[in-house]
Amino acid sequence: MWERRGIYALALLSCLICCDGGVTSSYRRKLAATEDMPLDSDVFEVPKGFNAPQQVHITQGDIDGRGVIISWITPSESGSSTVSYGLEKGKYAHSAQGKVQRYRFYNYTSGFIHHCTINNLEYNTKYYYKLGEGVSAREFWFSTPPPVGPDAAYTFGIIGDLGQTFDSNKTLQHYREGNGQAVLYVGDLSYADNYYPFHDNRRWDTWGRFVESSTAYQPWIWTAGNHELDFAPEVGENEPFKPYLSRFHVPYHASNSTSPLWYSIRRASAHIIVLSSYSAYGKYTPQYRWLNDELKSVDRNKTPWLIVLMHSPWYNSNGYHYMEGESMRVQFESWLVNYKVDIVFAGHVHAYERTHRISNIAYNIVNGKCTPVRNDSAPVYVTIGDGGNAEGLAAEFTEPQPDYSAFREASFGHAMLEIKNRTHALYYWHRNDDGKAVMADSVWLTNQYWQ
Amino acid sequence: MWERRGIYALALLSCLICCDGGVTSSYRRKLAATEDMPLDSDVFEVPKGFNAPQQVHITQGDIDGRGVIISWITPSESGSSTVSYGLEKGKYAHSAQGKVQRYRFYNYTSGFIHHCTINNLEYNTKYYYKLGEGVSAREFWFSTPPPVGPDAAYTFGIIGDLGQTFDSNKTLQHYREGNGQAVLYVGDLSYADNYYPFHDNRRWDTWGRFVESSTAYQPWIWTAGNHELDFAPEVGENEPFKPYLSRFHVPYHASNSTSPLWYSIRRASAHIIVLSSYSAYGKYTPQYRWLNDELKSVDRNKTPWLIVLMHSPWYNSNGYHYMEGESMRVQFESWLVNYKVDIVFAGHVHAYERTHRISNIAYNIVNGKCTPVRNDSAPVYVTIGDGGNAEGLAAEFTEPQPDYSAFREASFGHAMLEIKNRTHALYYWHRNDDGKAVMADSVWLTNQYWQ
Repeated sequence: MWERRGIYALALLSCLICCDGGVTSSYRRKLAATEDMPLDSDVFEVPKGFNAPQQVHITQGDIDGRGVIISWITPSESGSSTVSYGLEKGKYAHSAQGKVQRYRFYNYTSGFIHHCTINNLEYNTKYYYKLGEGVSAREFWFSTPPPVGPDAAYTFGIIGDLGQTFDSNKTLQHYREGNGQAVLYVGDLSYADNYYPFHDNRRWDTWGRFVESSTAYQPWIWTAGNHELDFAPEVGENEPFKPYLSRFHVPYHASNSTSPLWYSIRRASAHIIVLSSYSAYGKYTPQYRWLNDELKSVDRNKTPWLIVLMHSPWYNSNGYHYMEGESMRVQFESWLVNYKVDIVFAGHVHAYERTHRISNIAYNIVNGKCTPVRNDSAPVYVTIGDGGNAEGLAAEFTEPQPDYSAFREASFGHAMLEIKNRTHALYYWHRNDDGKAVMADSVWLTNQYWQ
Repeated sequence: MWERRGIYALALLSCLICCDGGVTSSYRRKLAATEDMPLDSDVFEVPKGFNAPQQVHITQGDIDGRGVIISWITPSESGSSTVSYGLEKGKYAHSAQGKVQRYRFYNYTSGFIHHCTINNLEYNTKYYYKLGEGVSAREFWFSTPPPVGPDAAYTFGIIGDLGQTFDSNKTLQHYREGNGQAVLYVGDLSYADNYYPFHDNRRWDTWGRFVESSTAYQPWIWTAGNHELDFAPEVGENEPFKPYLSRFHVPYHASNSTSPLWYSIRRASAHIIVLSSYSAYGKYTPQYRWLNDELKSVDRNKTPWLIVLMHSPWYNSNGYHYMEGESMRVQFESWLVNYKVDIVFAGHVHAYERTHRISNIAYNIVNGKCTPVRNDSAPVYVTIGDGGNAEGLAAEFTEPQPDYSAFREASFGHAMLEIKNRTHALYYWHRNDDGKAVMADSVWLTNQYWQ
């Protein structure tokens, strides 16, 4: 029970600290409806067998989708870092050797975290893989994407701010029932930093076991949120992102990034850029320089769909976290308009919102032009931080709904992006309260380059 | 000669890369007038004696001015890291033990960099100190400030973007002829990163020897600029600020900061906050959290004068670097107004500018209120990036001069802040082209708390 008490107290505190004005009451009201799953929940169950691999998750491991990074944790001893894989279940013609690492966070020591990259896979192929040894071995599978190309159809799920509540479980279940082939995850994973005492990192482990039913079978493309910072100088933990970066590896070298917090991949007909809301983005900084080069390198003839992921939204008409993304928007928005980004996904706000194609890039200090305006070259901005975490829904929107906002609702859920070809993609939001077939918000996107 | 050719080529390149629109012609025109001092200049001379300490610089070493960090480099071997000090020249009753470090940058290996902190000094006292051994030993002195208190008079110099040209030398000479007791340095030190090939770090060493005539005798309070980033992934140098952080230590722990890139000190009647334009400053980041706590901790009854240093200015009407500070302004400006900061010093733009007391904090996306307005609670903003570096003057201001700008001129120089008591301080700018006695721009500041 202490975990639950802990999270309640901290969520309230977090509300008092973080919420900018006027949203406290609804935040509290909703809090009770969003409870963490208890530690003995089946979704947190430790797999059977001594030192059996757990918290298995995969992500793209190279620039074009022929590589996969497979990550898992062994709790008791290092064990093997080898991944055996092949085209048939139980027949593993290949193997790859990973590396193991651990980290300490205050009084917590992690298990043995394995990361193994498999390269040169065939496209459009189902692979089976095995981790661990003897009776503790476990088997999974994944499918590689089609080759990168302008008309390669592909379906992404989009999830943010998931956490590990009963609502989180519902979101994940609903997503798994759909046709998503990979997840674009827009930050805030476990919320372990909210747990008493001292960012209880055991909640990173429970989260890893909870999401395994999806993350072991299809790549989740990771974005860091504020809950990944785990910055706790009060207990001597001064290295931002330590647990996150230890547990979740991404192929940042492949896109010439110098940090796993910002990077890109190409998958099917999509070029996906991941940005870090909580790293430096001022002019001349590494992230700034990387994004500047990166946008120039995008080839819309190969990847018509240009997608950007970040945690803190630039356009958000919720009272919760209102204008928190301003500083980064001011820095980068004109680039995203100039390069005709198709869609930007963010999380952070525990509600759903979609904008029209709008921009706010005419401002020059002295001209008074600081209102978002319709702009056909601009991205659509989606806030999808409604994964279900214990902080509850952000139910108080600013009124009236601003012109830039096309749809907004405080309900838990996830989104889908079904890319059909170089010109068309179906985007929709699924609300947990609905059955499987309902699109609570949907829009056909016309590609910004090929339209 | 290659250094000179190198810097010309790179300055031109830097101009093409960095200047946002319309300022290229004047930039080029002025470039020829700002030449680096050749390597055999007397100001770069290596002190006599084997392994003699060089590049001696001191900075405040604690929160209140009873500590000093003494830093120096021995070129050939580690030698002693001991500082001997006392109240009389040649009589050193005390000693303190420092530490030594080196760094590598591409094909350059630094000398042995010593940092030694002396604590518990008496206020208002002249101390002599000795570094090195035998015939290679060198002696210097510094004066401690008065105790922290509301009417403690004190005179700061303010210098930025100094570099190592003939104009840099003039700026330093003029400053040394004045009555400054400590320097608030607003970033961009050596410009070594501009030197061919590969950020030639020997220009960090020449700069250290050049400024020693001041930095060995009075504390320089350091701020990191973009030229301190030394980020060069093209040669595998991916760690931002490596040379700078190795060479310049600051007492960041004393103000509960977790990074030497942002910190504070109290000195006489001033509370000085140093910020980093090139680190993360988004909500929840370490710098954001630190500044939030820091501003609450300022006691204007002890230190009436609240001063903020940063590199990239928030208010700049020069065409050069126009609006580069926007992203950070958007994040922090309301705090500086709410806490009634007296004055903000920035560099970066190679010209001089002073604003009226103005703010631009009413904007909420939908209200159209985005014009700087007069605000008695707001700081005065000074841009003093006219120290004299080889990139030349930024001579093209935006026209017409905006209402927020009180004075602007593209000439090399430095500024002074003469704090008289809790209510009044004389601020002025000195232009290198003038004789010692001229204040090219001056204003009496009334304290924002005690007025």
